[in-house]
Amino acid sequence: MTQKRKIFNDPVYGFVTVPYGLLLQLIDHPYFQRLRRIRQVGLSHFVYPGALHTRFHHALGALHLMQEAIEVLRFKGADITEEEAEAACVAILLHDIGHGPYSHALEHTLIDLHHEDLSLLFMQELNQQMEGKLELAIRIFSDQYPKQFLHQLVSGQLDMDRMDYLNRDSFFTGVSEGVIGYDRIIKMLAVHDGELVVEEKGIYSIEKFLLARRLMYWQVYLHKTCVAAEQMLIHVLKRATQLARSGVALECPRDLSWFLHGGAAHVDDVSVVLQHFARLDDSDIAAALKAWVYSDDFLLSYLSSALLDRRLFRLEWLTMPATEAYQKEICEKLSPHFSPDVDISSLVFGGKESNRPYDEAKDQIKILFKNGNVLPIEKCSDVPLFTQLVTKYYLCYPKLF
Amino acid sequence: MTQKRKIFNDPVYGFVTVPYGLLLQLIDHPYFQRLRRIRQVGLSHFVYPGALHTRFHHALGALHLMQEAIEVLRFKGADITEEEAEAACVAILLHDIGHGPYSHALEHTLIDLHHEDLSLLFMQELNQQMEGKLELAIRIFSDQYPKQFLHQLVSGQLDMDRMDYLNRDSFFTGVSEGVIGYDRIIKMLAVHDGELVVEEKGIYSIEKFLLARRLMYWQVYLHKTCVAAEQMLIHVLKRATQLARSGVALECPRDLSWFLHGGAAHVDDVSVVLQHFARLDDSDIAAALKAWVYSDDFLLSYLSSALLDRRLFRLEWLTMPATEAYQKEICEKLSPHFSPDVDISSLVFGGKESNRPYDEAKDQIKILFKNGNVLPIEKCSDVPLFTQLVTKYYLCYPKLF
Amino acid sequence: MTQKRKIFNDPVYGFVTVPYGLLLQLIDHPYFQRLRRIRQVGLSHFVYPGALHTRFHHALGALHLMQEAIEVLRFKGADITEEEAEAACVAILLHDIGHGPYSHALEHTLIDLHHEDLSLLFMQELNQQMEGKLELAIRIFSDQYPKQFLHQLVSGQLDMDRMDYLNRDSFFTGVSEGVIGYDRIIKMLAVHDGELVVEEKGIYSIEKFLLARRLMYWQVYLHKTCVAAEQMLIHVLKRATQLARSGVALECPRDLSWFLHGGAAHVDDVSVVLQHFARLDDSDIAAALKAWVYSDDFLLSYLSSALLDRRLFRLEWLTMPATEAYQKEICEKLSPHFSPDVDISSLVFGGKESNRPYDEAKDQIKILFKNGNVLPIEKCSDVPLFTQLVTKYYLCYPKLF
Amino acid sequence: MTQKRKIFNDPVYGFVTVPYGLLLQLIDHPYFQRLRRIRQVGLSHFVYPGALHTRFHHALGALHLMQEAIEVLRFKGADITEEEAEAACVAILLHDIGHGPYSHALEHTLIDLHHEDLSLLFMQELNQQMEGKLELAIRIFSDQYPKQFLHQLVSGQLDMDRMDYLNRDSFFTGVSEGVIGYDRIIKMLAVHDGELVVEEKGIYSIEKFLLARRLMYWQVYLHKTCVAAEQMLIHVLKRATQLARSGVALECPRDLSWFLHGGAAHVDDVSVVLQHFARLDDSDIAAALKAWVYSDDFLLSYLSSALLDRRLFRLEWLTMPATEAYQKEICEKLSPHFSPDVDISSLVFGGKESNRPYDEAKDQIKILFKNGNVLPIEKCSDVPLFTQLVTKYYLCYPKLF
Repeated sequence: MTQKRKIFNDPVYGFVTVPYGLLLQLIDHPYFQRLRRIRQVGLSHFVYPGALHTRFHHALGALHLMQEAIEVLRFKGADITEEEAEAACVAILLHDIGHGPYSHALEHTLIDLHHEDLSLLFMQELNQQMEGKLELAIRIFSDQYPKQFLHQLVSGQLDMDRMDYLNRDSFFTGVSEGVIGYDRIIKMLAVHDGELVVEEKGIYSIEKFLLARRLMYWQVYLHKTCVAAEQMLIHVLKRATQLARSGVALECPRDLSWFLHGGAAHVDDVSVVLQHFARLDDSDIAAALKAWVYSDDFLLSYLSSALLDRRLFRLEWLTMPATEAYQKEICEKLSPHFSPDVDISSLVFGGKESNRPYDEAKDQIKILFKNGNVLPIEKCSDVPLFTQLVTKYYLCYPKLF
Repeated sequence: MTQKRKIFNDPVYGFVTVPYGLLLQLIDHPYFQRLRRIRQVGLSHFVYPGALHTRFHHALGALHLMQEAIEVLRFKGADITEEEAEAACVAILLHDIGHGPYSHALEHTLIDLHHEDLSLLFMQELNQQMEGKLELAIRIFSDQYPKQFLHQLVSGQLDMDRMDYLNRDSFFTGVSEGVIGYDRIIKMLAVHDGELVVEEKGIYSIEKFLLARRLMYWQVYLHKTCVAAEQMLIHVLKRATQLARSGVALECPRDLSWFLHGGAAHVDDVSVVLQHFARLDDSDIAAALKAWVYSDDFLLSYLSSALLDRRLFRLEWLTMPATEAYQKEICEKLSPHFSPDVDISSLVFGGKESNRPYDEAKDQIKILFKNGNVLPIEKCSDVPLFTQLVTKYYLCYPKLF
Repeated sequence: MTQKRKIFNDPVYGFVTVPYGLLLQLIDHPYFQRLRRIRQVGLSHFVYPGALHTRFHHALGALHLMQEAIEVLRFKGADITEEEAEAACVAILLHDIGHGPYSHALEHTLIDLHHEDLSLLFMQELNQQMEGKLELAIRIFSDQYPKQFLHQLVSGQLDMDRMDYLNRDSFFTGVSEGVIGYDRIIKMLAVHDGELVVEEKGIYSIEKFLLARRLMYWQVYLHKTCVAAEQMLIHVLKRATQLARSGVALECPRDLSWFLHGGAAHVDDVSVVLQHFARLDDSDIAAALKAWVYSDDFLLSYLSSALLDRRLFRLEWLTMPATEAYQKEICEKLSPHFSPDVDISSLVFGGKESNRPYDEAKDQIKILFKNGNVLPIEKCSDVPLFTQLVTKYYLCYPKLF
Repeated sequence: MTQKRKIFNDPVYGFVTVPYGLLLQLIDHPYFQRLRRIRQVGLSHFVYPGALHTRFHHALGALHLMQEAIEVLRFKGADITEEEAEAACVAILLHDIGHGPYSHALEHTLIDLHHEDLSLLFMQELNQQMEGKLELAIRIFSDQYPKQFLHQLVSGQLDMDRMDYLNRDSFFTGVSEGVIGYDRIIKMLAVHDGELVVEEKGIYSIEKFLLARRLMYWQVYLHKTCVAAEQMLIHVLKRATQLARSGVALECPRDLSWFLHGGAAHVDDVSVVLQHFARLDDSDIAAALKAWVYSDDFLLSYLSSALLDRRLFRLEWLTMPATEAYQKEICEKLSPHFSPDVDISSLVFGGKESNRPYDEAKDQIKILFKNGNVLPIEKCSDVPLFTQLVTKYYLCYPKLF
């Protein structure tokens, strides 16, 4: 009997191939199609105009890498049944389905749930709709399955999520230095005592991968202009929430409005929250910003139009939190540019960002030597592995002087 | 004195470099920033998920190629002053500024002006705002300038617009077969009697360019699923216009609403129309579709939710227009899937698409031979050049049987 | 049990993976290792300095594509046993093993056997050495096996040889316009009535493939400077043969010397010829040229040093063979540059080159339609398919005026 | 007047453009054309079959980057005259002209001069032939010119040599992890107090560059199989030298023979040595190996045929030099595979390799901050910079057990 597969074009890998059946049903589901409207790296396109790729494409890419990883591991003798292979594919396909619009910025602003918890809720909901077909995928996703390496492929130091996003983000931003040897790393993966390990020959590639990750953090994800834009977005939504909850009428798409008015907090039935959440995407934020330009509220209108027209705030990195004196100095310099009734301090945001490329306390990368020994990479690499948490403070304000 | 340039990352060319001054002021203008929210190939991302690139990025790319072309032509002795070089750069940067959201589909639905006329209106408006600095660019853009080759670089068979979009669209769709030798073609350009010509050695590259263009038309721009999605979008907006003008209340972003209610037709002052148009972008269409899902009007709601969840219609290519009998047959097959009060025929769209990669009647590609002779390419190529208009008819309807 | 594979880096595909066993044994054999010293596109590096890739790498690449094609065809239901898959892989791996150094130029100069016949002789020899393990591969290679599509994958209009060489040659020359959608074409392959066919959706890719092939012929393989260099090489070897057979002592590597002295013609035992042939490679030609620079024979020395220092002849393309009058005119212009005893006419070479990208008389490309119909591509494409033989004549002589 | 440029295809950069005049004359010179026959990474193609690129192509690539760097620096206000620009281009074009075949392995085996000294000798010779046109280039090359940054572009931590070779070697090997952001680094270069510096924004790219360099060393240049092949080549030439000097007749190309017989040591006139050296290239080594297979000397014949057929020795990395006991153990394991009269110890090679990606004692990379401060990178990066010399010892012997 002739089987069928659907082929998706992907500038990163050429093609992603998906067999007809459960995986394609999930892709066709409105929950998943919604990811077409949620960008992978939020506001980074303000700095890297090509970075418009979506979580939809990322999920397909991660699925592609999972298929490759399974093929490699099976060839090396790992025992992976057809059911397990499909479940691991389902788990990686849906690993990010709980992401909302601009979730790096808006998590905890719109809803007090982490995106991984939301992903799990979505999977459980889909599992019900599909009569239990996602049971095994859910067990793998939530690390409840004995063959631990399957979970590690979905969520771990070297999971297919990271492999794809580093690769994809560097492709679409054009930051060629973020390129990783994903295909080489995957070819070096193996299973040892039920855990994912990397063959000795892959050490240099792993070191390179960790440096690339660090570089992408500071050059893309935490680029000062991107952080500034995110802070502006967070503050515009906080202000909208404040106004909404104090009864001010706001032009706003209906599901976003429901969240701004505190819907998620007032409703106990998580499935109701999920229905609203499943209708949110980047276009709601864009529509809201475009409407709020006309608001009477100065802060709401000022930030909205600044975001729309890309008049982004300046962000200064500092080695420690900005002193009150320095904040006051900034406010004084800004003051002549605004009418006297504006509260300048509401336009000056302080905060911090941190990054640790390799947190060996959480989950170790293990190297398998030819003689059968297994060692964590920090014990066998002759370079430092960025295990330290790097924290930077910032102050962010209108670029008017 | 140290000059400055701003660098934009571009996955296609690596970097695009823009000198401080007029060009950067134009890029920073809200009219131009708006292009960040207008996709280059509209709904093609439904088939090619990577094709989310915007007219903003395309305009920067075309500017980059213009800089290269000017450098090449100058090196070969073409007389191009600093002012002319800047004006040609301005003209290519703004050549597409008159595009609205999904303009391939929506031109003539929202506004009865061609995007090139709108681009000219925008340039004139910007020229006023910038005290006449765009005079020369406007003359070049509208082919009023004696050095005709400058206009041909902006708009002609081998203009920097086409060079960039074929290149960029094939990059982001992942259709590697659309790749053209843009850098080789540019290196082969020359000026002869005030006109743009191609050196003899470039013939193969031009033939390849024409075939790539043809391939991109049928494989991307006129891909059957893309045409189906466009038809759905056209019909949803036609329906909304109908409802709006008959007084039905419609949830809709305000500037889009202004157009649906016939604003553009009722207002004489073109600058008022322009102000509204300058606030339209793809996000308005997305917001409208998301709101219309809840409409009481069946057609509006059905099409909107079908687009949102990607339940795209089937499109059949036909060698002649669909007969009435065939249309009736289709309606009968669809009928059992809808309630009796639905007008099925409103869900069945007929039409046609045409393409002619090289229309030598309009503008010829001329080849310069070593001996100084110049011939149109159709006289010196030993392959056929796709000068024929190819027309395909279609019928498009819900994929329910 | 853990299986093993060897991984070869390939800038074209990333990696080529070869399972331990027969394929790897063949790769390790001196006959195959010799292909490391034979360039794929002979003298083209004189024009495209990157084109130094070897038949060794090409054979590995074609093997890689064969593995992909088999996977695709099996998925679509084609019946291919493990033995047949391995045999098809062996056949493609060895399809070019009969190539000698610069065989496009030197076939029939050194030995009067076509490279495909030599490949078959090598396979038979290897089959003996390996106790019959190549039987099935030989049957497939020589089209003696009932499942004809396996032969077509090795040698046909869309074989893996062409797929790889067009791709690889365009990669290493940097002629981006020769890029073909090999992965898309392979994904569109199917088997119908035992023959290889292409699914309807692949028509554009096939058209593109044929144009790319034509372009690569005239832009690379038959580039005028490459043809000129080849003619120089042919004439230098003809001269050396002449001298050798007339008893003049020639400094020359030993196996090449054997051929120049007519060894292949005087020996009946084909295995003896094969042993000598198996020790020839590009380095022998280089070594001979370097030695012949010092020869007393003017023609031998002149052509050798011109090739070494890249003082390549001019080649003019003509629409018909050069007239005697024109040849005389050229000789007269050259005459002042040489001493009176030089026979100028021995430095002026005439000839012709032909190319037909798609010869449907020999082997048709067949398209499979959704309704099950199969048609040759020339019946269903709306573009011309380069079925005509294009012939160009040339005259080639020192570039001294 | 129309200027002319010659265009070279380069898969790495697309095209390299060279203006007619001095640069093109140098490229056409037999000394430079000879680089077409000398591979950039010697024997690495045994591991990376694509790595056949030559010093010719590398020199053109470095020239291309020099042109870009000069354009960037001039734009930022650096004072570089036309003469200086051309001289810097000449210097980078010829910086490697003193390389002989497999010079990483054979330096000090064939001739007791470092390749940089030979490059200088070649430049001086060319300067004489070209009536002093290379004076300025020679001053820049040998760091005798006041504008020190010009020398640093030719030879320094961030010179165009390194930029090109890291890029090119990673391209042709297919080791994608060696890719560096060369275009970004070049865009970040500036001149400060006459020295080359990097703008603050380029720090991450420099860190990445240093890691990529380290990775390329251990993964390509010092790959264990490459080092093994090099050791084999060194020993075969040492043996040939020994035999030659003790009067044994050796089949060997004439200029290589001159060196093996100690020509360079016996001749005082450096220009005579240069003439011989200028006729050496990779093909001489290949020709010699092919001839020596037939030698009566066991070691010469054994190593030659092992190299030809790629039966490469095993190489073990050790943390300290191999003990005598271990060497003896290896010899005993090898012994049964050879006839009793073979001196096994001549087939067992010990040695060491070292690498230090960033040697700040020799030449510092300096970072220019926005406030005008300049600091060496090791004072402002928060990652370690591989300033330590890493040394590895090895033992290398036939892979027979």
